[in-house]
Amino acid sequence: MMRIYGDSNSGNCLKVKYAAEHLSIPNEWIEVDIMRGASRTPEFLAKSPQGQVPLVELDDGRTLAQSNAIVCYLADGSSLLPADPWARAKIDEWLFWEQNSHEFFVAGCIFQMVYLKMSADQREPWRVARAEGALDLMNRVLSSRTFFVGEHISVADIALLAYTRRAELGGFDLSERSATRAWIERCEQALGLQALRAS
Amino acid sequence: MMRIYGDSNSGNCLKVKYAAEHLSIPNEWIEVDIMRGASRTPEFLAKSPQGQVPLVELDDGRTLAQSNAIVCYLADGSSLLPADPWARAKIDEWLFWEQNSHEFFVAGCIFQMVYLKMSADQREPWRVARAEGALDLMNRVLSSRTFFVGEHISVADIALLAYTRRAELGGFDLSERSATRAWIERCEQALGLQALRAS
Repeated sequence: MMRIYGDSNSGNCLKVKYAAEHLSIPNEWIEVDIMRGASRTPEFLAKSPQGQVPLVELDDGRTLAQSNAIVCYLADGSSLLPADPWARAKIDEWLFWEQNSHEFFVAGCIFQMVYLKMSADQREPWRVARAEGALDLMNRVLSSRTFFVGEHISVADIALLAYTRRAELGGFDLSERSATRAWIERCEQALGLQALRAS
Repeated sequence: MMRIYGDSNSGNCLKVKYAAEHLSIPNEWIEVDIMRGASRTPEFLAKSPQGQVPLVELDDGRTLAQSNAIVCYLADGSSLLPADPWARAKIDEWLFWEQNSHEFFVAGCIFQMVYLKMSADQREPWRVARAEGALDLMNRVLSSRTFFVGEHISVADIALLAYTRRAELGGFDLSERSATRAWIERCEQALGLQALRAS
């Protein structure tokens, strides 16, 4: 059975869980406490030189890191990742945008508030500004789309959903971003996820 | 003919040029001066809501953003991007790592020194530390590999090459990273690029 090494508080790790469950891929979740250095032990680094979660380990011992690479591998050929080259390219476009223009900023603020127990006022202004800009862009795009690419949920939605649905934990307000809230509900319904309540 | 909208000083844009030339894809380069806001004009945003370069525009008007998404689309089915699902997954792993653990830090420092004319001492210490760590990881991995995935140059190498070969412009020293220097030479030879000299 495929093993998923992950941290339950990490959106990047949850992406893999969402995709595996949706695709009915049997999996065993192995909790890795990144705050205690569990992803930097010699044993973990032997599995993955990057020392990052999520990491999946297949039955034959092969390992794959990077959340978006993992979800693409798992979803290849399914409705979550169509074989059409242009559809794949547009999905890749959002997957890379998520990693370079969304995750570091939105997830970074969630990390500071959830893991480091900082208040919203203690977040770095430049990170907050980039995060707000990314959330605004998503909302503009979603105002005229059902999902990010095509009319069916794809791995692009899964990647963007993971931290966006938890954005309030990072001090962000989605109440005025109605297109985003509607998209989150569509994704949660498609994936069979319970709606989150900001705590 | 495919149009590449890019900034000649941007490694992300040069990736697309490297791949297109290697694949003998006819292309027209359209210089976009990002420092003068040319990627945020209404005309440009109509082509790409993210407002980022590189952007490619196909003959039929379709557009694609995100350097790594573009090089994958162009290289699909070629030796730069094998069809084997596991090889593709391992290439994706490095492409996403490049965007979330290398580009923001290494390219960020290059941006500060080349575009903003900052000195090496003015770079942010946290960004420098992450960049040095990324370059160290690359060097460790490359000490036992010819290319990042398999025995042939792939889009993973092109993505990592673009800023790594220009790392000295960002204040980084590759002289002790001999595995990286040898890999840069292999990539330059495979791609027919002239060796760069730090200026």
